[in-house]
Amino acid sequence: MTTNAYRDAGVDIDAGNRAVQLMKEAVRSTFTANVLADVGSFGGLFALDNLPPQPVLVASIDGVGTKVKLASQTGRWRGVGIDLVNHCIDDILVQNARPLFFLDYVASSRLQPQAVAETVGGMAEACRAARCALIGGETAEMPGVYAEGAFDVAGAVVGLAERSRLLPRHDVMAAGDVLVGLRSSGPHTNGYSLIRRAIEGQDLLQVLADGQTLVDALLAPHRCYLPEVETLQAAGLAIKGMAHITGGGFIENVPRTLPQHLAARIVARSWEIPPLFQLLMRWSGVSREEAFRVFNLGIGMVLVLAAADAAPALDLLPDAMVIGRLIERGPVDPAIQLILGDNA
Amino acid sequence: MTTNAYRDAGVDIDAGNRAVQLMKEAVRSTFTANVLADVGSFGGLFALDNLPPQPVLVASIDGVGTKVKLASQTGRWRGVGIDLVNHCIDDILVQNARPLFFLDYVASSRLQPQAVAETVGGMAEACRAARCALIGGETAEMPGVYAEGAFDVAGAVVGLAERSRLLPRHDVMAAGDVLVGLRSSGPHTNGYSLIRRAIEGQDLLQVLADGQTLVDALLAPHRCYLPEVETLQAAGLAIKGMAHITGGGFIENVPRTLPQHLAARIVARSWEIPPLFQLLMRWSGVSREEAFRVFNLGIGMVLVLAAADAAPALDLLPDAMVIGRLIERGPVDPAIQLILGDNA
Repeated sequence: MTTNAYRDAGVDIDAGNRAVQLMKEAVRSTFTANVLADVGSFGGLFALDNLPPQPVLVASIDGVGTKVKLASQTGRWRGVGIDLVNHCIDDILVQNARPLFFLDYVASSRLQPQAVAETVGGMAEACRAARCALIGGETAEMPGVYAEGAFDVAGAVVGLAERSRLLPRHDVMAAGDVLVGLRSSGPHTNGYSLIRRAIEGQDLLQVLADGQTLVDALLAPHRCYLPEVETLQAAGLAIKGMAHITGGGFIENVPRTLPQHLAARIVARSWEIPPLFQLLMRWSGVSREEAFRVFNLGIGMVLVLAAADAAPALDLLPDAMVIGRLIERGPVDPAIQLILGDNA
Repeated sequence: MTTNAYRDAGVDIDAGNRAVQLMKEAVRSTFTANVLADVGSFGGLFALDNLPPQPVLVASIDGVGTKVKLASQTGRWRGVGIDLVNHCIDDILVQNARPLFFLDYVASSRLQPQAVAETVGGMAEACRAARCALIGGETAEMPGVYAEGAFDVAGAVVGLAERSRLLPRHDVMAAGDVLVGLRSSGPHTNGYSLIRRAIEGQDLLQVLADGQTLVDALLAPHRCYLPEVETLQAAGLAIKGMAHITGGGFIENVPRTLPQHLAARIVARSWEIPPLFQLLMRWSGVSREEAFRVFNLGIGMVLVLAAADAAPALDLLPDAMVIGRLIERGPVDPAIQLILGDNA
């Protein structure tokens, strides 16, 4: 039996099988004791044990936006795998969930086994670091759907939380609570359509003021904030809420963690906006206000803490900083106030 | 604040928000009592209750292949949403899992709110029918990644099984067990790259021998086999294993449910291959043997039952049929034997 007719239609089953072989070892390296089935089963099996009293599954699915385009242009696939996993883990971390397992989908016009293996290798690396099992995945060859040479990735994470410990805790938030920002490693996975337009004609190997090349700064993988959150909680500090600064920037994401009667007052000069974002604003002509709606501008996660917990938190996390506080919000006030200073 | 610079780069945040609005009602209609958060939270929340003694989560992620291309060419989005959900549910059903919740990812070069809403509406319809909550989704606009006008969908399902009832049950399978086939509604989600090439130049509105138009036959949504499986199990019939006939057809999928010492003997003349598949084989020049590796040829799910359970199963499911049986397999025998007759 041959599969030549199928291959002529643009689908290469053997190339798919080769890619699967290359990925198997990386995927197995993520397996925890809860994983029951091996790579290649219909569905991934994850045994639930040591459940808290009122277990809640927290799940999220996402892609990494057009950062994939930049990755395929430069042949750097691994970081995109890390991006995808860490983005999803951070999305459920804000509800105080710990990741159990991850599933990935990689699709392109034509399967390049090495590229798929690199991408999944990056996912496995990020999963291992977060003790998250990579229990399922699909690679799809879609001639005519994807632009030639382009690929896309999507992934879903499932985590576990205890119902009584879910965040945000609107009942304990109050005016005067502080907003602590945790540094991002770069744009993470936001704003890449704008970024790709902004960098047209720029030399990707130019060195920025912080010593990174432009391409390295653009492709730096998304940070996972699980270690920071666990450090604070292990020290007994009560995080009241968290905002993952993703699409929609500060403007859309910080209010999602707040109750109706409180607003966030963010003082932009509290931190130095990294050179990459300053260049992107200049090259794209995006206003500083608009930039707060598109980019994370150097802060990838915002935590809400009682004012008394700010100093111990900063001691535990040397690269964290206070970037604002909660204030009372009247019926016609915006949910977020930006105080723009001279930091850009 | 305006988002004009962002829109100029090919991303329309407002169009995204409109699409979200259109989908909200459909998504909410799938919510079961276990769903804790409303549409728009960071992650979807699903409370676990009434857990069996040894709960196992079973998860799968997938797309629908280049069937999306045919859907966008004809503007028929709803069926693709149904395809995606039912395909994923069937993938975990073979391990005896019942779906808890679903997450979707819809991406295109440019967001068409109506198309996205139709697609998600189809997903919600299929989720409601299977009592599966649609607790999360992402719509992504990816100019430059997708071909102009093209879109792709991926989705992940998470289901629950009891460890002692997981399938397949290799320990109880034996030579003489029967293979019961459940009808497919069409090609489901397999082989569409080959199909799209095969139908080039064909009139999509031509009427097939079974009275369907070609386009209706090609786009018939994937069947969900949950009701059939529940009917058999409620009647006390023990399903020993199941194979979902997806990519790789009978050849790759039936062996996945069998132990090393047993092979499947499938008698092709046991059922009538539907007119669509006969035309596709003729138009594409795919051999009959190869067709068993690409298409489901009219059988979307294969169940392994004790021989004594075959008659009661066929009584309960009028459109099911015995399509073969298990035989002993020696060390050099193939895992599947096809007996090709005169039925095509």
